[in-house]
Amino acid sequence: MSRRAVVLLSGGLDSATVVAIARAQGYAVHALSFRYGQRHGVELACAALVAHASAVPEHRIVDIDLRAFGGSALTADIDVPKGSVTRPIGDEIPVTYVPARNTIFLSFALAWAEVLGATDIFIGVNALDYSGYPDCRPEFIAAFEAMARLATRAGVEGSEPLRIHAPLQEMSKAQIIRKGLELGVDYALTSSCYDPGVQCEPCGACDSCLLRARGFAHAGVPDPLVARFAPGPGGHG
Amino acid sequence: MSRRAVVLLSGGLDSATVVAIARAQGYAVHALSFRYGQRHGVELACAALVAHASAVPEHRIVDIDLRAFGGSALTADIDVPKGSVTRPIGDEIPVTYVPARNTIFLSFALAWAEVLGATDIFIGVNALDYSGYPDCRPEFIAAFEAMARLATRAGVEGSEPLRIHAPLQEMSKAQIIRKGLELGVDYALTSSCYDPGVQCEPCGACDSCLLRARGFAHAGVPDPLVARFAPGPGGHG
Repeated sequence: MSRRAVVLLSGGLDSATVVAIARAQGYAVHALSFRYGQRHGVELACAALVAHASAVPEHRIVDIDLRAFGGSALTADIDVPKGSVTRPIGDEIPVTYVPARNTIFLSFALAWAEVLGATDIFIGVNALDYSGYPDCRPEFIAAFEAMARLATRAGVEGSEPLRIHAPLQEMSKAQIIRKGLELGVDYALTSSCYDPGVQCEPCGACDSCLLRARGFAHAGVPDPLVARFAPGPGGHG
Repeated sequence: MSRRAVVLLSGGLDSATVVAIARAQGYAVHALSFRYGQRHGVELACAALVAHASAVPEHRIVDIDLRAFGGSALTADIDVPKGSVTRPIGDEIPVTYVPARNTIFLSFALAWAEVLGATDIFIGVNALDYSGYPDCRPEFIAAFEAMARLATRAGVEGSEPLRIHAPLQEMSKAQIIRKGLELGVDYALTSSCYDPGVQCEPCGACDSCLLRARGFAHAGVPDPLVARFAPGPGGHG
């Protein structure tokens, strides 16, 4: 039997790539998503599509209510910035930052890993594109791993230590895209937009859409998601 | 204005004491409880009573579904052990252990603290009575604090570092009870039982009831909760 790993799957480009990487490393992927009061429920539909397309043995969606605390454009009534990447990404913490989100997501992954008997957790954080988020930094991931090794039965019983894998950590968006295409990821199934339309079409104007577009441009390949929504004979328009 | 602190409040004896300690230290207590699929919803009723009696400025209950993963007598269909403290407490991990529970609880507390602008979180873990739980150990609390300092805006912006307070860490149950009585805690409002009856009466036979009874015996005072449910003129029987 393959070793099991819990993989955080948001339905975005990055986490879809991480699922493919974990599979390529021989893990049986137990995909974990969250319904966390985000405005963009389309993420979860995409997560389910990616999980299905990747034939993972299990995909669970856990309800958590991050709206209970507010504090982010993604969970509270704050406008998502649009129009351009107006500030140098990385210089400040964006309003789309959700307080302690990755800490909470990884904590649930840890709980499930313990129940599954898995010692590997994968997360698609990326320090280069998103260094504005404190909980995407390598030092945060390392500290979470150290904490997690003490938090569970394994930490008491001295069995195999838990590992947090962040394979995209040092990759550019273009490198991520090339890696995913090499591993057969269908990016037409993923959603990166912070504010998608009624048909799940990306807005094309938020930071996340702009970073995605820039990544595909640098990778020198068209974004199949854009093609999916393009007007004309090949699209839905 | 008082400094704010997030205090994890389960409705049990320990966390009720922690609320009183945080208040005595001058904090405005923002109490946080969880509806986490536990069998004993009575805990939450007690948490609300304690929050009310302590006149805390805010008490929030967050829904999380730890049953999604199972793995514990408190969230899955596993019998709670009864009759006596059959094994020396601390020698093994009890079946009532909930995987990664304190990690998850503290992660939510961290999110709320960040939104509140609070840098202090209180938790009622106790290493002496419950060393069987990996996530009650001092080294776990220290590792969580180190991680939390990197997880949030404060970790990037270099402002005041977050502190996790575990004031009961090295206290015996009897010491906790004496401290709480000194600070005016009404233990008749608290619930410690893993398997309470239909009127919220403690079973008197689970590990938690036995530890509580032993604590009151060692403190040399009667448990007002027992008196509340005792038959006769003073009780409800």
